[in-house]
Amino acid sequence: GDFARLDTGRQRRTGVPEVVFAEGKTPEQTLRLLAELRDRAPETPALATRCPQEVLAAAPDAFPGQPVLVDPVARTVTVGDPPAEHGSVSVLTAGTSDLPVARECVAALSAWGVRTRLLDDVGVAGLPRLLEHLADIRDADCVIVVAGMDGALPSVVTGLVPAPVVGVPTSVGYGFADGGRAAAASMLSSCAPGLTVVNIDNGFGAAAHAAKIVRRMHGG
Amino acid sequence: GDFARLDTGRQRRTGVPEVVFAEGKTPEQTLRLLAELRDRAPETPALATRCPQEVLAAAPDAFPGQPVLVDPVARTVTVGDPPAEHGSVSVLTAGTSDLPVARECVAALSAWGVRTRLLDDVGVAGLPRLLEHLADIRDADCVIVVAGMDGALPSVVTGLVPAPVVGVPTSVGYGFADGGRAAAASMLSSCAPGLTVVNIDNGFGAAAHAAKIVRRMHGG
Amino acid sequence: GDFARLDTGRQRRTGVPEVVFAEGKTPEQTLRLLAELRDRAPETPALATRCPQEVLAAAPDAFPGQPVLVDPVARTVTVGDPPAEHGSVSVLTAGTSDLPVARECVAALSAWGVRTRLLDDVGVAGLPRLLEHLADIRDADCVIVVAGMDGALPSVVTGLVPAPVVGVPTSVGYGFADGGRAAAASMLSSCAPGLTVVNIDNGFGAAAHAAKIVRRMHGG
Amino acid sequence: GDFARLDTGRQRRTGVPEVVFAEGKTPEQTLRLLAELRDRAPETPALATRCPQEVLAAAPDAFPGQPVLVDPVARTVTVGDPPAEHGSVSVLTAGTSDLPVARECVAALSAWGVRTRLLDDVGVAGLPRLLEHLADIRDADCVIVVAGMDGALPSVVTGLVPAPVVGVPTSVGYGFADGGRAAAASMLSSCAPGLTVVNIDNGFGAAAHAAKIVRRMHGG
Amino acid sequence: GDFARLDTGRQRRTGVPEVVFAEGKTPEQTLRLLAELRDRAPETPALATRCPQEVLAAAPDAFPGQPVLVDPVARTVTVGDPPAEHGSVSVLTAGTSDLPVARECVAALSAWGVRTRLLDDVGVAGLPRLLEHLADIRDADCVIVVAGMDGALPSVVTGLVPAPVVGVPTSVGYGFADGGRAAAASMLSSCAPGLTVVNIDNGFGAAAHAAKIVRRMHGG
Amino acid sequence: GDFARLDTGRQRRTGVPEVVFAEGKTPEQTLRLLAELRDRAPETPALATRCPQEVLAAAPDAFPGQPVLVDPVARTVTVGDPPAEHGSVSVLTAGTSDLPVARECVAALSAWGVRTRLLDDVGVAGLPRLLEHLADIRDADCVIVVAGMDGALPSVVTGLVPAPVVGVPTSVGYGFADGGRAAAASMLSSCAPGLTVVNIDNGFGAAAHAAKIVRRMHGG
Amino acid sequence: GDFARLDTGRQRRTGVPEVVFAEGKTPEQTLRLLAELRDRAPETPALATRCPQEVLAAAPDAFPGQPVLVDPVARTVTVGDPPAEHGSVSVLTAGTSDLPVARECVAALSAWGVRTRLLDDVGVAGLPRLLEHLADIRDADCVIVVAGMDGALPSVVTGLVPAPVVGVPTSVGYGFADGGRAAAASMLSSCAPGLTVVNIDNGFGAAAHAAKIVRRMHGG
Amino acid sequence: GDFARLDTGRQRRTGVPEVVFAEGKTPEQTLRLLAELRDRAPETPALATRCPQEVLAAAPDAFPGQPVLVDPVARTVTVGDPPAEHGSVSVLTAGTSDLPVARECVAALSAWGVRTRLLDDVGVAGLPRLLEHLADIRDADCVIVVAGMDGALPSVVTGLVPAPVVGVPTSVGYGFADGGRAAAASMLSSCAPGLTVVNIDNGFGAAAHAAKIVRRMHGG
Ligand SMILES: Nc1ncnc2c1ncn2[C@@H]1O[C@H](COP(=O)(O)O)[C@@H](O)[C@H]1O
Ligand SMILES: Nc1ncnc2c1ncn2[C@@H]1O[C@H](COP(=O)(O)O)[C@@H](O)[C@H]1O
Ligand SMILES: Nc1ncnc2c1ncn2[C@@H]1O[C@H](COP(=O)(O)O)[C@@H](O)[C@H]1O
Ligand SMILES: Nc1ncnc2c1ncn2[C@@H]1O[C@H](COP(=O)(O)O)[C@@H](O)[C@H]1O
Ligand SMILES: [Mg+2]
Ligand SMILES: [Mg+2]
Ligand SMILES: [Mg+2]
Ligand SMILES: [Mg+2]
Ligand SMILES: [Mg+2]
Ligand SMILES: [Mg+2]
Ligand SMILES: [Mg+2]
Ligand SMILES: [Mg+2]
Repeated sequence: GDFARLDTGRQRRTGVPEVVFAEGKTPEQTLRLLAELRDRAPETPALATRCPQEVLAAAPDAFPGQPVLVDPVARTVTVGDPPAEHGSVSVLTAGTSDLPVARECVAALSAWGVRTRLLDDVGVAGLPRLLEHLADIRDADCVIVVAGMDGALPSVVTGLVPAPVVGVPTSVGYGFADGGRAAAASMLSSCAPGLTVVNIDNGFGAAAHAAKIVRRMHGG
Repeated sequence: GDFARLDTGRQRRTGVPEVVFAEGKTPEQTLRLLAELRDRAPETPALATRCPQEVLAAAPDAFPGQPVLVDPVARTVTVGDPPAEHGSVSVLTAGTSDLPVARECVAALSAWGVRTRLLDDVGVAGLPRLLEHLADIRDADCVIVVAGMDGALPSVVTGLVPAPVVGVPTSVGYGFADGGRAAAASMLSSCAPGLTVVNIDNGFGAAAHAAKIVRRMHGG
Repeated sequence: GDFARLDTGRQRRTGVPEVVFAEGKTPEQTLRLLAELRDRAPETPALATRCPQEVLAAAPDAFPGQPVLVDPVARTVTVGDPPAEHGSVSVLTAGTSDLPVARECVAALSAWGVRTRLLDDVGVAGLPRLLEHLADIRDADCVIVVAGMDGALPSVVTGLVPAPVVGVPTSVGYGFADGGRAAAASMLSSCAPGLTVVNIDNGFGAAAHAAKIVRRMHGG
Repeated sequence: GDFARLDTGRQRRTGVPEVVFAEGKTPEQTLRLLAELRDRAPETPALATRCPQEVLAAAPDAFPGQPVLVDPVARTVTVGDPPAEHGSVSVLTAGTSDLPVARECVAALSAWGVRTRLLDDVGVAGLPRLLEHLADIRDADCVIVVAGMDGALPSVVTGLVPAPVVGVPTSVGYGFADGGRAAAASMLSSCAPGLTVVNIDNGFGAAAHAAKIVRRMHGG
Repeated sequence: GDFARLDTGRQRRTGVPEVVFAEGKTPEQTLRLLAELRDRAPETPALATRCPQEVLAAAPDAFPGQPVLVDPVARTVTVGDPPAEHGSVSVLTAGTSDLPVARECVAALSAWGVRTRLLDDVGVAGLPRLLEHLADIRDADCVIVVAGMDGALPSVVTGLVPAPVVGVPTSVGYGFADGGRAAAASMLSSCAPGLTVVNIDNGFGAAAHAAKIVRRMHGG
Repeated sequence: GDFARLDTGRQRRTGVPEVVFAEGKTPEQTLRLLAELRDRAPETPALATRCPQEVLAAAPDAFPGQPVLVDPVARTVTVGDPPAEHGSVSVLTAGTSDLPVARECVAALSAWGVRTRLLDDVGVAGLPRLLEHLADIRDADCVIVVAGMDGALPSVVTGLVPAPVVGVPTSVGYGFADGGRAAAASMLSSCAPGLTVVNIDNGFGAAAHAAKIVRRMHGG
Repeated sequence: GDFARLDTGRQRRTGVPEVVFAEGKTPEQTLRLLAELRDRAPETPALATRCPQEVLAAAPDAFPGQPVLVDPVARTVTVGDPPAEHGSVSVLTAGTSDLPVARECVAALSAWGVRTRLLDDVGVAGLPRLLEHLADIRDADCVIVVAGMDGALPSVVTGLVPAPVVGVPTSVGYGFADGGRAAAASMLSSCAPGLTVVNIDNGFGAAAHAAKIVRRMHGG
Repeated sequence: GDFARLDTGRQRRTGVPEVVFAEGKTPEQTLRLLAELRDRAPETPALATRCPQEVLAAAPDAFPGQPVLVDPVARTVTVGDPPAEHGSVSVLTAGTSDLPVARECVAALSAWGVRTRLLDDVGVAGLPRLLEHLADIRDADCVIVVAGMDGALPSVVTGLVPAPVVGVPTSVGYGFADGGRAAAASMLSSCAPGLTVVNIDNGFGAAAHAAKIVRRMHGG
């Protein structure tokens, strides 16, 4: 686009492709950039994150003859068929309000052909819910744990599984939760070794890290 | 003392007596205030917290003919015999470095005649350690959970026991732990309802709250 | 609900039941979760907090044949009859703007069968208002003090009564009040021993702590 | 001095004279500046604040033939006779640890000929101590209230007396007290109208404001 | 009102009367409280600050037969005749956007019978504008300086005039101005002795302090 | 130890063993815990991090008959032979002062048998230094980038290599660097997708994450 | 204007003229001030920044017979012909969302007759984009680098070019980006010597600094 | 050195040479790096900043046959003869405690052959001191203003002179001065257009910016 300089060498250099961040762009700009990405980098689907309602509504008709996937909870649009599935990433949430961030994570991994399993609403206020499902998580290539408020769940999970774990703090909560800063600080100060952290609400960033791990293991 | 105005009506008004906070006082001032408290409020032991090395060393000989208890880990001095034991408060720590704060808590409760049980080093990085001892905690009148770094343990405990729980954030940790602010913010934003919080490293304050609960239940 | 994993074991484990936090949920989701709670945990009323206008308006007709209590100031909905009243909790506010938080507190305690007394607008700018009513507070099982701005009232009250006191900072005020952080920091740094604190505007959390104290004393 | 540019016009322009702030200066520099002030502005005593031990010890012999007043608690040195006493300022402290700040305040006012009354250790944890002495404060030209930790005392006092009140937050306390920021934020957010605030531990600044009020009323 | 506990003893105790803070109240509540204040404390005008548009529009007709003064810039309503003018307070602003805060200050002082002079838009980016008018300020009983952004003007003024100075930081500015915190921190750290500070945008609080100074000098 | 509860199940549960964090422990405690770890978990070397000078000096003689490795820059002690080398992790630093953190990282990985390459002092102030060595980094299983001050290097590297990247902010710098918070915030806000972050100065944590990635790929 | 005190001596004193900051002003006020500036300082164009939609729409017809330039991305209005072009300033952006700030910068420089070159979307996630265009930047009189999120680009550029560099942090980003504070802190802590910084989103301020450099070199 | 990677291309790329930052280095490392710089970049003097006492004492004898300049206030060592003087930079300080930062600035500029004028202790508490010397500043190529506490002086100066101005906040002050953050925030929010800012206490960084301006004007 004449208002942007798409970094089409990114997939080759880093293993994950350029993606359209729709926040702060007009619907027209987002759709035009998706089309341009599709043209210039046809080997992976074109993905847009943080899409406003207009983009989610207009996308299905905007790419005639091409598969378009819209996730209104994640607020993502994917244009083009994803590569064959490979690897395995588990995505957990602490509460129901963390779901949109987890779904952005799943949408990006799916666009890049990475297999995901989502386990939601297993926060520490009701620990038995997590312990019941622990076996399902232990064999993942990477575990992503999404949590707001106290941000305690990623520390608990990192102490229980052998996979590399990425914590995603969310802006869920009020007062001292401070838009996700309390959750982030708790994760960054975790007593459980090996937990790494991405920005608040950045499901996309966690997905990119996980995809690089999976790609290194399984290629793709 | 001529440099202080001891609040000897405090026990009658609030149920917990005036206590000497030794930080920022000379050893002489602390010992003189302990003696004055002993004189003017002989019905409970006189307690000093945050005592420097000199006070801990000098205390045993400073009150001839009176029982003196010194806890060098808690940095407390207790002069006088505590009342008969009553009630039951459990004190937990996440890591070994949280012990001084937990011991200050135990020292105050003991001086006031409240029975305590201390369970240490059961942080969430190794959750099985907590789950093994859960039964011992469930029947307490109040549970005090002392934790630094991520501050996750009090949320986990509050989701598992029926007793009122007080979280004590500690200044253990570095970087984002921020002198205990991360732990405190995590506890204050807890997804587990009913967790209340005191100031960072304030084992004494948690003890006072627990003592008021115990006193209301069992008198004393 | 298929979008949530209700923690119906919570009352048994912790003494306070799962509650619907309506913030960030659609009205339909909140009403469906209230119905599900009512079905699966019929022994206590189902409670929803932080309800938007639509939920408050729709609730009375949504549960035919069941008692529904709506408090538009507290923004709570209670479905089902509360257990017989027991215990005694005093709830104080510093100013008239703190009322919604105090009423959320009262609504939760009432749903759980705990007797409450509300004393409002007795902040420290006009201290005689508090001193006049002090006798009414002294015999409570727990005192909850709700205050924004300077957050000074809980410290004053904790220095005057024998009951355990919980401070609830509110987001009332501007500038250095900082959305309740000034009040919270003042309470957490209180010179009055035994004051514990919950998150900003978290009347519900203070109610849960008080209910656990009352339950321990009086059962229920 | 060749390393400083003394503002000897300050008394004429603003009513309070230039003063030596000894922090970060060598003892020699402080003593030389005191001498220079004495020479060039002989109409008021020369005052140095925040003096290290060496200056306090050396001062009495450093100005032969001149009256030298050293206050080791305030850490001030005053050289020269103060003008005749006039006006009346009350200085209160919440706790014994706030005393050095209050004494700096008193030392400055005394050097400038303002009459002071000091009432210490009357913090809100033991409110009866303040109420007993209220009558003594009501007729002051200005009331200065020095408090750390919760910073609640200045709000309580401002709600009870007709004099203009200045709050001085102190760095007394730990954790959320945050070096005096909690006390300052509480005072700045006070629900009691008319309370003004100076920097943390700045007893000198409060004295300067009070002196300007007194000077405007009584001249001098 | 049944939803508020008016502190009608405040004028007698503190010299400034109770005032209605309209923020967070419905227009009906504000008008009812103004009427109640008028009834119960007829000796001074009843004042409401931070009034929304509806109150400003409805006020002139709401008090038949009584003088009503509305200032739409200050967002204040004054009902009743002010006492005879006395004293003299200068109010300065740094930029045009600081005007509403300065006008709130003037409205309160006028309601209480204190004479004011307003000098606006004399910020330090164009220092000659201040120097030209300095003579007008020097003889005031109190000078109030209102400034956002860098908050530099109060320090400059305090270094030039003998009157006691109160700084009012405003929320004017962006980025590091941080809603007025930069201006406030600059004023609180002022190198000019005697500057005291009130909360961000708190023109009313500065007026109360000035009124107490004036009242002490001139009675009233 | 009687003062600690070693989590010897950690390696089995999470893939990385319990490690002794020497900060805040006496030299005796650290050496005793190393011995206990050695006894109870002989399959991997026992590691202590953040060791004070006394531990570094005493360690070589404290474990007779066992290989002891001391790194005085990293402040680590390793007792026992590491497993056979596998995998490949690159560790970069921005400046020479970041070296201790990078060396802690290398020491932990080496103890766990992971091969490392260290490339130091390649910060963005002199970008050509990084570009020259880029080829060496591209084929790593994981890249760890250690940087203080502006924290810009991890973003630059993440935009250039396909490996998963972990950023370690360090406390190097002053003023706005704020003990590593500026570097951390820059990394967490990175425009380069997939960068994850650990706590300030937490070389050990980054090593644990990398080890889990390597272990998942290569076993061990 | 009667509501403002235009500083028409500013150009003479400082080399850059007074400018209308439209934020917080009514459209009428902004247009009237533009007209007044035009009248009283006809030697340079009159400029308004941060104009709301109404001003941008009304401006072209508001100054009949005069050249009016509106930039809707920059939100600026320029009335009058700029002086002849001189000097040379390069303006870079990290991402497409930083464009409005860069365009404000260009609009101001253009109004003052300074030649500019804009190079956008060359952030560090795709470093090759910058390296390709480096030669174009090296000979500028001043380079202005606009960046949000990680704020890394200005440090990289300062390490590569001989011109004085000014960094402009922007409020682009979320979570730890913190409204531009992360970018600003990264720039202020830069390891690249000579980078200076202006307030978040303050393209205008960077332009003023650059214009002063150009004016000193080339006059004008 | 084997522990550092000197960036000897920096002068050619950016116009200012690599410099040794001695903080956090051993005296031996600093002296060795100075020697290495001298060898590999003989065209400019080698400079070390933030030198501890040992380096300042050892330097004169460490470079036999070479001119060595030690400034104990600036804590700098310069080895080698500076180029011929050119350009003109004014350096101002607000108070005497800001002198070390200003002297670091002067030392760097002198090493690079830039002529400087130092005007100290002209802070806004005594404005007449600045106004007296204004003429001396007006014709500089660049003005550097060093100020702690309120940070007001750079805003005042920027409103009075045509030269580009760089503000250097210092860590002088206490409480809200917050290690220089208050001064920095005030400067960054300045109402005086064109003021740019460097990190707290970073006299060296301001010198580098000024040197680049001078070099662009006068070559060198
Ligand atoms: N949800 C997201 N959060 C953070 N970064 C994103 C997200 N989605 C896309 N991005 C990145 O943001 C960049 C787009 O920036 P821009 O030049 O402003 O369009 C892309 O290079 C993406 O890698
Ligand atoms: N007002 C409230 N403040 C804080 N937590 C609440 C509140 N009301 C309900 N909760 C808790 O929030 C949880 C609901 O979280 P969720 O899974 O997001 O619906 C419940 O388990 C409640 O215990
Ligand atoms: N304790 C104090 N706190 C704040 N400012 C002070 C104090 N003592 C003296 N001052 C002021 O600090 C200035 C001295 O600054 P300096 O030029 O660094 O010596 C004088 O103008 C005093 O007005
Ligand atoms: N975009 C901008 N950011 C910061 N300051 C500005 C901007 N545009 C204009 N100004 C300055 O803001 C001042 C206007 O302030 P005021 O008196 O409130 O109109 C002018 O003196 C300008 O120099
Ligand atoms: Mg849930
Ligand atoms: Mg442990
Ligand atoms: Mg009220
Ligand atoms: Mg006391
Ligand atoms: Mg103006
Ligand atoms: Mg280097
Ligand atoms: Mg881009
Ligand atoms: Mg001075």
